[in-house]
Amino acid sequence: MADFTREEIDAVYRVMTERRDMRHFLSDPLDAALLDRLLAAAHLAPSVGLMQPWRFIRVRDRSLRERIHALVEAERVQTAHALGEREGEFMRLKVEGILECGELLVAALAPGRHKHVFGRRTMPEMDLASVACAIQNMWLAARAEGVGMGWVSLFEPETLRELLRMPAGSRPVAVLCLGYVREFYPRPMLEMAQWARRCSVASLVHTDYWSEGGSVEDGGRMEDGGRMDHGGRMEHGGRMEHGGKGEHGGKGEHGGKGEHGGSVEDGTAG
Amino acid sequence: MADFTREEIDAVYRVMTERRDMRHFLSDPLDAALLDRLLAAAHLAPSVGLMQPWRFIRVRDRSLRERIHALVEAERVQTAHALGEREGEFMRLKVEGILECGELLVAALAPGRHKHVFGRRTMPEMDLASVACAIQNMWLAARAEGVGMGWVSLFEPETLRELLRMPAGSRPVAVLCLGYVREFYPRPMLEMAQWARRCSVASLVHTDYWSEGGSVEDGGRMEDGGRMDHGGRMEHGGRMEHGGKGEHGGKGEHGGKGEHGGSVEDGTAG
Repeated sequence: MADFTREEIDAVYRVMTERRDMRHFLSDPLDAALLDRLLAAAHLAPSVGLMQPWRFIRVRDRSLRERIHALVEAERVQTAHALGEREGEFMRLKVEGILECGELLVAALAPGRHKHVFGRRTMPEMDLASVACAIQNMWLAARAEGVGMGWVSLFEPETLRELLRMPAGSRPVAVLCLGYVREFYPRPMLEMAQWARRCSVASLVHTDYWSEGGSVEDGGRMEDGGRMDHGGRMEHGGRMEHGGKGEHGGKGEHGGKGEHGGSVEDGTAG
Repeated sequence: MADFTREEIDAVYRVMTERRDMRHFLSDPLDAALLDRLLAAAHLAPSVGLMQPWRFIRVRDRSLRERIHALVEAERVQTAHALGEREGEFMRLKVEGILECGELLVAALAPGRHKHVFGRRTMPEMDLASVACAIQNMWLAARAEGVGMGWVSLFEPETLRELLRMPAGSRPVAVLCLGYVREFYPRPMLEMAQWARRCSVASLVHTDYWSEGGSVEDGGRMEDGGRMDHGGRMEHGGRMEHGGKGEHGGKGEHGGKGEHGGSVEDGTAG
């Protein structure tokens, strides 16, 4: 296989740079062949053990689309309440374009995944990681083709699963709004709306151990970590969707050590 | 922003088509500027609520790399045992290139994620989805630059977390082998090794409801419902597509529909 040319390499970086999570759409339908290319791009994604766990439901029925919208709207309100002091700010954001976008897809995890052990014995959530890679491929392909896409995760997955008559063991992971747009946001919409700020790359990288390298926010935060590394198997990760091991996002990391000033955790981000 | 040219669009599809999960590497180091570009590409990924949950640990110390390798090797053996009848076949696969690759990174979820509610109240795992998108960006950028990458998830995450002195609440999600390669595999290595087969795009797509559209394999297949990964409603029952409540998964779906020649679930895949 020939090396990529300078121009091809630049195109790859360009599409990543200009991809946006869109919420404003024109309603023009997508050409069927174009949609096929986007689905094919998704299917070129890597998957753990080549399990290819991604499935897509194309929502054509208008009333079904409206029911999905209602489900998202209900969760939007619940999320706003959960956000507390940022409730009003959140409610002013446009967080989806379900009713107006040209094409609506739901991306999901297939059932039967427990049979796939390769790369998942201790990391069962790798199936979701594979689906996310597929969605990112689709997102980039769409952007290159001049099509906007938005990933909506404001829904109760079991309710959506039942609405779409999906089998037990499957799980919807994204409502994907696709369609032509008047313009792509010049920067991430949540950044433009001052919901959150982008952090620097340097602040995300450590060398050898978490506490070395990385920015003050991260490096500093970890300093306290010295002792959290030990003993802390216990993070309560409240809602472990996978594997039920209870790892994941424990509340434990507050660790009583005061603020982590990190990046999006600096008080402007929710 | 100008439209993408035909050549740019082709480059985007080309990089997705030629990206591979690599396990064979040359040991030449990567240029620091190149590595920076790959990390910057990762950081261009979308994230739920713009939370940017990805962190990267660059492993420079040789003995640390060897300890990570030992940890992966231990899990490789455990996975082989768990695979049962495919144990021997699995053990003959090359599943990582940790010791020989030019650059080793660990990608991780940052701690403190419970504070991010936007898009995660009912779908907390969206943080992992964001990290996976970042890794996919890095993968594609690496491929364009002529650099191979492999995602290894054969490890006990808590053990790796402690080894890297990561704080409680953080979670490693990938050991990433990066480096130059003699050649990129023409097809996915697990396909070439006949571990699994690629399924058709058509078999992955449904229209409006799961049971409509999609291939026989999907519509008509299912697993032995007992161990539903999510939700655990746990039912069996033949025709999961209908019934919205307790249908699903049983062995029933084999029922009468004949073989699902499904992709990786056709008896050749684990």
